[in-house]
Amino acid sequence: MLRVDLLANIFSNIPSKLPNEIFEDILITEKLRVERIVSKGQTSPDTGWYDQSENEWVIVLSGYGIVEFISGVKVALKQGDYLNIKAHEKHRVIETSSDDTTVWLAIFY
Amino acid sequence: MLRVDLLANIFSNIPSKLPNEIFEDILITEKLRVERIVSKGQTSPDTGWYDQSENEWVIVLSGYGIVEFISGVKVALKQGDYLNIKAHEKHRVIETSSDDTTVWLAIFY
Repeated sequence: MLRVDLLANIFSNIPSKLPNEIFEDILITEKLRVERIVSKGQTSPDTGWYDQSENEWVIVLSGYGIVEFISGVKVALKQGDYLNIKAHEKHRVIETSSDDTTVWLAIFY
Repeated sequence: MLRVDLLANIFSNIPSKLPNEIFEDILITEKLRVERIVSKGQTSPDTGWYDQSENEWVIVLSGYGIVEFISGVKVALKQGDYLNIKAHEKHRVIETSSDDTTVWLAIFY
C-alpha cells in the first residue's frame, strides 16, 4: 500500500512572492528543533546580529546565502553546503539569492 | 574575509562506484546524530527490519528511495521529501535509484 500522506516536501508550499522570509518549524522536540527558512533576496534585519542560545547546524538546499560572523569571516553557502554555528556565535545573513528561492534547513540543538 | 574551509557539502566525496551504501556521521552530540546515507540501487539487508531505539527524521536530497513499514505501508521519497520514523517503528528500504545516487540526510534523536 503506497501512501503519500505521510510525506511532506521541503520545496513545497513556497509562495511565488516573498516580501518577507518565512520561518517554519518542521520538527520540535525537547532536544532539537528543525526549521525551514525560505529567503529571496532578504538579509538579516539591520537591527543586529543573531545571538542564539542554541547551536545551529544549517544546510542550503536551493539558492545561496552568505553568512557573516561578527569576526568578519564570511561564508558563502551554495546548494548542499552546510555549516555549524555555535551558540552565541554572533552572525547574520548578508546576502541571499534574489533570482532563486533560497531554502535553508536548520537544526537548532 | 571569505572562507571556504568552514564549509562542507552534502553532495561531495561520493565515490563513482558504490558497491555498498555509505553511512557517515555529520554531527554527533549527546542529544542527536545527523547522518548522511548514500545509496545507489541498494536496499536494506535481507536479514530484517531496522528496529531503532531512536526516532529518525529523514529527507531525500537526491535520487529516490522507497521505505516500507512492517505494517505494509510503503512510502516513496523523491528529492525534498521527508518522513518521520518513530523509534521502534520497524521499517526497511526496499528500493533506491539505480541510475542516480540517492543522498539521504537523517537526524536520529
